[in-house]
Amino acid sequence: MQAQLIALDWGTSSLRAYKLGPAGVVLEQRSLASGIMHLPTEPRDIAGVRCSNGFELAFDAACGDWLDAQPSLPVIACGMVGSAQGWSEAAYRTAPVDVASLGQALHPVRSVRGVQVHIVPGVIEQAGLPNVMRGEETQVLGVLQGLGAQVLIGLPGSHSKWVEVVDGCITHFDTFMTGEVFAVLSKHSILGRTQQQSDLFQAEAFDRGVHVALSKDGQRGVLSTLFSARTLGLTAELSPEQQPDYLSGLLIGHELAGLPARARKTPIILVGAVPLCTRYQRALALCGFAHVSLAQEATERGLWQLAVAAGLTQPVLEA
Amino acid sequence: MQAQLIALDWGTSSLRAYKLGPAGVVLEQRSLASGIMHLPTEPRDIAGVRCSNGFELAFDAACGDWLDAQPSLPVIACGMVGSAQGWSEAAYRTAPVDVASLGQALHPVRSVRGVQVHIVPGVIEQAGLPNVMRGEETQVLGVLQGLGAQVLIGLPGSHSKWVEVVDGCITHFDTFMTGEVFAVLSKHSILGRTQQQSDLFQAEAFDRGVHVALSKDGQRGVLSTLFSARTLGLTAELSPEQQPDYLSGLLIGHELAGLPARARKTPIILVGAVPLCTRYQRALALCGFAHVSLAQEATERGLWQLAVAAGLTQPVLEA
Repeated sequence: MQAQLIALDWGTSSLRAYKLGPAGVVLEQRSLASGIMHLPTEPRDIAGVRCSNGFELAFDAACGDWLDAQPSLPVIACGMVGSAQGWSEAAYRTAPVDVASLGQALHPVRSVRGVQVHIVPGVIEQAGLPNVMRGEETQVLGVLQGLGAQVLIGLPGSHSKWVEVVDGCITHFDTFMTGEVFAVLSKHSILGRTQQQSDLFQAEAFDRGVHVALSKDGQRGVLSTLFSARTLGLTAELSPEQQPDYLSGLLIGHELAGLPARARKTPIILVGAVPLCTRYQRALALCGFAHVSLAQEATERGLWQLAVAAGLTQPVLEA
Repeated sequence: MQAQLIALDWGTSSLRAYKLGPAGVVLEQRSLASGIMHLPTEPRDIAGVRCSNGFELAFDAACGDWLDAQPSLPVIACGMVGSAQGWSEAAYRTAPVDVASLGQALHPVRSVRGVQVHIVPGVIEQAGLPNVMRGEETQVLGVLQGLGAQVLIGLPGSHSKWVEVVDGCITHFDTFMTGEVFAVLSKHSILGRTQQQSDLFQAEAFDRGVHVALSKDGQRGVLSTLFSARTLGLTAELSPEQQPDYLSGLLIGHELAGLPARARKTPIILVGAVPLCTRYQRALALCGFAHVSLAQEATERGLWQLAVAAGLTQPVLEA
């Protein structure tokens, strides 16, 4: 099958490249460590030009050969590549925003080989405390098809997003720094000193952490319950192997306790890495959330739809 | 004046030594970096014996000359020196516990020079989630004199403690990992990347952080509001110099929001480093806590009283 589109999911720590065929079918995909904070630095010739720009180098490594074979392939990208620290800044669109309409607001940057890379703008909400996303808006679009008028989309990760969508519009979203807080506490705080990594998921410890977050103790907030990850070790109620999953459950439990009350009545779709989404699904069940499902391939679908909306490619193969 | 007691406040990161005279007056004091996680390693002769034990080395550096001059001086110590990672483990006493009675439960360890070091046991509470303290029980005792029957004692720090005392008994206490969370997020998370240290206290930013913690947004919990330390920078509402104090106010605000409702009706005493206590006093005022005062010299006073209760020294100079 002939390729129709190159779609890039370009975040802080990684770069995923998709070669998409007719109707957005994935023909080939690659994953590189060249997130915008980890760009290559070794100068190289690209299209006959000596190049030292890290974005150009990473772009060429990700899909230069695809473009050599088909130089007119359109390219679309989402994620932190459009941030102030990215290749070129794509100004935020303000929520509430119709997700499909973002296809009319792509921000082009011209690569050294002359190809335009069309960057999807992120979304900002400024009603209360400001909140921002880059990349998640594309994933949201990618899972909307076939869903009801009102859904809550959870995107667990370093900075988890919870996005409320009504009739295809992002009406509100929250960010929780759960994943990054887990990582820095495990690596750099006293809690990490007594932890031991385990190959097995410690379900009992994870569930206990979720329950503590939901309990009366949890109402004092996570700054207080965190210390129990240490004291339950001191009292031999948690083994070193159980402590990481206890902390994971505790933090995820606090995140879920912070969701608005209306979330309980809204169908929830989880988008992201399957092991992490499975954790969240388990925690959501413990918290009494009823309608939860997992979605796959959200980013590549979202990028395809935006490229179609922008006229970069055709929705179906022309006869 | 003749010395009566050597009192050691020996924690994780520092060791403070006091030479106390009649009625507990401080004759001399020293501060060393030899906390139990930062002990000296260079072997040395102590009292004619080659010594490589870090606790012995630190002890000798802190007060060996005082003991050379007065070999019969009694020695008392509190803090993490009595933990499982300390010089010798002093078993926890279980709350509720009469603080003055801890003087009857000192744990002796014999130093290479033959001197007994009397270690104050920590306190554990096991009613709900387990909670522990080591050192703070001594500070609590040190400030109790002259206070009413019911007080709440706040000890801000890496792991802040809030201790409820009724009639000289520790009835309940909570721990908040506020200081350590602030430190690891500032140093190792994305929030630190846009922060710039300032010599001036950024009062407006600090107050804003406290208010956000207390606001409706704050009810989603600190994992969510944390992200505002980044987004308020992105929207130019916080300068890089304001971000550290905003984060400080935000975390302290969440800590105070987690105190029990009855705390509002109880006189509060703050114990600890003055700059940090002043921050907490400011935040407490913003949160509407009315009766707040600062206490000084809590540790040395508490150690003196425990030594008197243990019969190690005399309450007043003998005629």
